[in-house]
Amino acid sequence: MLHPMGDSDLRVEAVLAAFDSTSFVTARQPALQLEMGGIPGDRHFGLTRVTGGRDRAQYPPGTTLRNDRQITIVSTRECEAIASALGVPEVLPEWLGANVQIDGAVGFTSLPPGSRLVFPSGAVLRVEGENEPCVKPGRVLSQANPGTDGLPAAFVIASKGRRGIIASVVRGGAINPGDSVRVAPSLQRAASELG
Amino acid sequence: MLHPMGDSDLRVEAVLAAFDSTSFVTARQPALQLEMGGIPGDRHFGLTRVTGGRDRAQYPPGTTLRNDRQITIVSTRECEAIASALGVPEVLPEWLGANVQIDGAVGFTSLPPGSRLVFPSGAVLRVEGENEPCVKPGRVLSQANPGTDGLPAAFVIASKGRRGIIASVVRGGAINPGDSVRVAPSLQRAASELG
Repeated sequence: MLHPMGDSDLRVEAVLAAFDSTSFVTARQPALQLEMGGIPGDRHFGLTRVTGGRDRAQYPPGTTLRNDRQITIVSTRECEAIASALGVPEVLPEWLGANVQIDGAVGFTSLPPGSRLVFPSGAVLRVEGENEPCVKPGRVLSQANPGTDGLPAAFVIASKGRRGIIASVVRGGAINPGDSVRVAPSLQRAASELG
Repeated sequence: MLHPMGDSDLRVEAVLAAFDSTSFVTARQPALQLEMGGIPGDRHFGLTRVTGGRDRAQYPPGTTLRNDRQITIVSTRECEAIASALGVPEVLPEWLGANVQIDGAVGFTSLPPGSRLVFPSGAVLRVEGENEPCVKPGRVLSQANPGTDGLPAAFVIASKGRRGIIASVVRGGAINPGDSVRVAPSLQRAASELG
């Protein structure tokens, strides 16, 4: 597991966004410019969000919450591990609706909630928690691998603990491919670490 | 330490706010009505905040951040433990700038960042992390205990790990004295727990 206190060798491999509101699938971008609500124009942009089916167990439909699902981040190695477990050639960040693809992170999905990801521009993201797998990316995988049965359900199992994290913006700024990423612990505990 | 998955017997003992902008000291209120920015009229209200001295190690002064210091919560038992360690009769939540005083919580300050506090009204707070002690409440303690030397510095040491937490609003609603409080784990992991 990644240690939230230590120096890291995380690196941004790619940045992506979903500017087409009809699909959660993202497309590669030259850079992201984050505001307090997330990525302007992206389907998850907003300071608040209204609850949907995924939140049914916690909240009545139509409840307004602070938006903590602004940014989706996946790790290259975890995507490779999912692909390997499913016996498919690849699992692309696009198919997971990822906004940031991180390289060099084993155990990325296990980063403790509240951890901060600090980018060279000064942008800071807060880790909200594991992005729990649902069947939708598995359906996209099925389209990419015709003739393979049962991928949606298998995806949910194979990607548990590897599907990346949800994050929200603490401080706006740019995220660029090639950026190094520092992992800092939560809030005040970060004071002596962030220097 | 409190277990973030379990049923809890936490109870709201008192609610407080700082409507006088000249001091961080809070005053008891009949109830709080939380909005997405916190407590309207309170000195910490806002969706964003501008960094000050406490943030110097992390951010340049005047940086705009998402406001994760909206609500301060302390535990009755931890306040008693601080008073006992300092040899003073009492440490009031008011002097710590608390907005919510919780009864029945041993190890409250150690609640993991990202945990949710769920109130009967439907209001939900997110635990941001431990509120790191500074000398200001110790100065108020000195005024309440004339003739006692060194309380500001002693307070910082005695209240480490007991000074309560900072929280932010996930969902607005009322918080009333006597409310029971449910502790739920972070984000998606909460789905099966919150029912």
